[in-house]
Amino acid sequence: MPTTAKTNAGNFFEDFTVGQVIEHATPRTVTEGDRALYGALYPTRFALPSSAEFAASVGLRGAPVEELIAFHVGFGKTVPDVSLNAVANLGYAECRFREPVVAGDTLSTTSEVIGLKENSNGRTGVVYVRSTAKNQRDEVAVEWCRWVMVHKRDSSAPAPEPVVPDLAKVVAVDDLVVPEGLDFTSYDFTAAGEPHRFDDYAVGEKIDHVDGVTLSDAEHMMATRLWQNTAKVHFNTQARPDGNRLIYGGHIISMARALSFNGLANAQLIAAINAGAHTAPAFAGDTVYAWSEVLDKAETSAPGVGALRLRLVATRGRDESMTLRGEDGKYAEGVLLDLDYWAFVPR
Amino acid sequence: MPTTAKTNAGNFFEDFTVGQVIEHATPRTVTEGDRALYGALYPTRFALPSSAEFAASVGLRGAPVEELIAFHVGFGKTVPDVSLNAVANLGYAECRFREPVVAGDTLSTTSEVIGLKENSNGRTGVVYVRSTAKNQRDEVAVEWCRWVMVHKRDSSAPAPEPVVPDLAKVVAVDDLVVPEGLDFTSYDFTAAGEPHRFDDYAVGEKIDHVDGVTLSDAEHMMATRLWQNTAKVHFNTQARPDGNRLIYGGHIISMARALSFNGLANAQLIAAINAGAHTAPAFAGDTVYAWSEVLDKAETSAPGVGALRLRLVATRGRDESMTLRGEDGKYAEGVLLDLDYWAFVPR
Amino acid sequence: MPTTAKTNAGNFFEDFTVGQVIEHATPRTVTEGDRALYGALYPTRFALPSSAEFAASVGLRGAPVEELIAFHVGFGKTVPDVSLNAVANLGYAECRFREPVVAGDTLSTTSEVIGLKENSNGRTGVVYVRSTAKNQRDEVAVEWCRWVMVHKRDSSAPAPEPVVPDLAKVVAVDDLVVPEGLDFTSYDFTAAGEPHRFDDYAVGEKIDHVDGVTLSDAEHMMATRLWQNTAKVHFNTQARPDGNRLIYGGHIISMARALSFNGLANAQLIAAINAGAHTAPAFAGDTVYAWSEVLDKAETSAPGVGALRLRLVATRGRDESMTLRGEDGKYAEGVLLDLDYWAFVPR
Repeated sequence: MPTTAKTNAGNFFEDFTVGQVIEHATPRTVTEGDRALYGALYPTRFALPSSAEFAASVGLRGAPVEELIAFHVGFGKTVPDVSLNAVANLGYAECRFREPVVAGDTLSTTSEVIGLKENSNGRTGVVYVRSTAKNQRDEVAVEWCRWVMVHKRDSSAPAPEPVVPDLAKVVAVDDLVVPEGLDFTSYDFTAAGEPHRFDDYAVGEKIDHVDGVTLSDAEHMMATRLWQNTAKVHFNTQARPDGNRLIYGGHIISMARALSFNGLANAQLIAAINAGAHTAPAFAGDTVYAWSEVLDKAETSAPGVGALRLRLVATRGRDESMTLRGEDGKYAEGVLLDLDYWAFVPR
Repeated sequence: MPTTAKTNAGNFFEDFTVGQVIEHATPRTVTEGDRALYGALYPTRFALPSSAEFAASVGLRGAPVEELIAFHVGFGKTVPDVSLNAVANLGYAECRFREPVVAGDTLSTTSEVIGLKENSNGRTGVVYVRSTAKNQRDEVAVEWCRWVMVHKRDSSAPAPEPVVPDLAKVVAVDDLVVPEGLDFTSYDFTAAGEPHRFDDYAVGEKIDHVDGVTLSDAEHMMATRLWQNTAKVHFNTQARPDGNRLIYGGHIISMARALSFNGLANAQLIAAINAGAHTAPAFAGDTVYAWSEVLDKAETSAPGVGALRLRLVATRGRDESMTLRGEDGKYAEGVLLDLDYWAFVPR
Repeated sequence: MPTTAKTNAGNFFEDFTVGQVIEHATPRTVTEGDRALYGALYPTRFALPSSAEFAASVGLRGAPVEELIAFHVGFGKTVPDVSLNAVANLGYAECRFREPVVAGDTLSTTSEVIGLKENSNGRTGVVYVRSTAKNQRDEVAVEWCRWVMVHKRDSSAPAPEPVVPDLAKVVAVDDLVVPEGLDFTSYDFTAAGEPHRFDDYAVGEKIDHVDGVTLSDAEHMMATRLWQNTAKVHFNTQARPDGNRLIYGGHIISMARALSFNGLANAQLIAAINAGAHTAPAFAGDTVYAWSEVLDKAETSAPGVGALRLRLVATRGRDESMTLRGEDGKYAEGVLLDLDYWAFVPR
């Protein structure tokens, strides 16, 4: 009898072709349980996803959950098909949050292969995909590109014609999607927790978010399972020589975003992720801190709504000097995440 | 003043009589929070409980939660009355899942004592109970038999007339309850995650589910509490000489079931549990894997719905040989669970 | 560029003035996810918050969550403004639970400074606040006083005129708020889990709740985050010289309350907290037990509803002698919590 033929071995580099569309299993309904678990796993306090009343007060229908819930759910779906045999998650680009997700929405995710480039070693290659998570009304909740280094099944397989997509370095301000109805003209700064508005932030300004959280295995495993992310290294001490469970990079993104409340409490909504790099692995016992840098500012056409382009950096241990790179141009020791994103803030 | 007279010391062997009916405290309402926690604690991805849209597409009203949530809630209720003084949980039989449970349903559980047999040592006896968890409309959600070895309070108490119930080795196909409306004729295999249908599985076939999860104390305690299971050994390092917290057997069932997605993604609904044995204790740090064997196949009268009888085996560490028993007939080293169940799959 | 000017450094002793009113960020909507997580983190089994059907059977609208959820959410809100620079949480008084909280309610919290007293060392002072958490209909869900010892920013700052509020030692029976509609005349003792009613409890009686739970870091961090409590010492191993994460005192309150089910299953609702002291720190690995003492009894005007005044004591390790204080009058070794509260029970 065949014994493992029915299990998913994941795709290898030579299984991908440019233009290929993958419909990922399995659709997933987001619930108030997800919101509560998100709040238990990350120290988030942003008023908009925390309070249905606050969300209504800024013109939103329903009570959207954190944007990153949509991102993690969508991302998790792509893992069995795209990155089960990945060596590394290399980068993100052109990620836009469009229709807010409320409890009861069911997300389904598809990916299109938009680039392929075999590495010179002949054993791995880079796969570029554009993924889209839609709700049950076929509206796009979130879309993003990422590229991953994937093993070849057979190093002697011929290399495909290299196709490297031309991805935007930054999502253009005009491409940001303001949720329907969003209006910050009567924004309650007291309820939100900080007085700082659009005009109070200057390009180049850095903010040390001060607080730190020590990571635990139970928590990162629960988070990663919640998004139905199946990458073995996050759950299985036998999957790595060192016996450690590697923490899902998205766990660090959410932890850093939550820590950034302290100083960026009014960066209520993530509008886009321009770029992101997981620069070092994180493990249970590490204490994560975060700092931010204001990279750009822009107005939007929505009433009272401005956009800040922010660099969010997570570090192992606090770095009050907020150093991104050393003199050698490499990421400084302890930097775990370098995330470039747009957020909507009150003007 | 009396000091402990108000606490529940649990029942001892001589407290049970055949025919006795026990109404267990406390009723419990199942919510979307339970679904989310189940998904955080187990790597489940079955499309039906994951997606309200998928559930509707196969004809179900509401969005049922995993069947095992009903089982664990019902089981947990019986612990304070049936197994607080148990030496061992010996077996399960005739477990049937009937009315699907949706968020908002309140489950109440009763047990009838259907057998009693004192052991020859005079210090313990076996108690057989048939338990039933009903919803607020008095519909049976799940029913099952189990038998446990329970301490006698007083070894000199006279032995009761032995009564050993005649329990079915396997739930007959005609006794399986297909949820009202279930129709797999338009089943979406892509959304479900695997193409394998009823005809693709052969009796005798074994499937190595490949993935492993390392257990943690925080997670199994949270799971066990969620079902209001009060057995001390799961929570208290002072309750066992080795200082370990014994993991609730149901945690291993749910973990193995979730791992079986990889190869059995279309075994969407558990219809019945024919038999089950927890063959070795599990502790935090153990890495659990699972394999399955197809024991039988049957058609049902519901449109497009077949039934697979499956053996689900959980192991400590991966056993690619999928060996259930050694040459001595005993369970092989590392086997944690041997569960025999029926699942509904698309034909 | 300024780098930390936007983060909240918390208030120091000289930042408070008597009469000052602080509106705390951020409002928070309570959901069924919170109820489920509460049940995963604490071994609670009280029938009223466990079962929507039971709640309806005793006349309540909706299905209230545990009272302590409202308390923790409200308390958590006050931390960034009141106790971020606290040395110690000294006490509670005059805490009353008023409008029950159901899923969907949004709680907003304000505090009034009602007392200030600088310590003779000139480096710290005691701040007394009365806090109120209201729902979206402006109804008070819970109100309480607490006093904390807070660092001065500058020890040379002049001491304020000392004001020490006159707080009630015990909430008067006439001030207890019975939830609208509560009627225990058809109370189902079987569903609730114990037969003991008002008349079965005698003043002076002590109850050893028998069960113990070993604490874990992941669990207390999740609980504390759930309430958006930001005190660093709970999350960060670098925040204390010993590298331990101090467990939020409210975690011990909820653990002890849940353990008290065994003997006080019918103490369904917490009506008031008269006083409370966290008498020793708790850490992961500690095994928490609880015992109670009946301090007083009172009738209420609601049908079938009596009130018990209870002392709830949490201990590290089990103390079958139930000793609160040693011969020196100090709390006995191992006592973690001494909580004096009123609960509603069936007569």
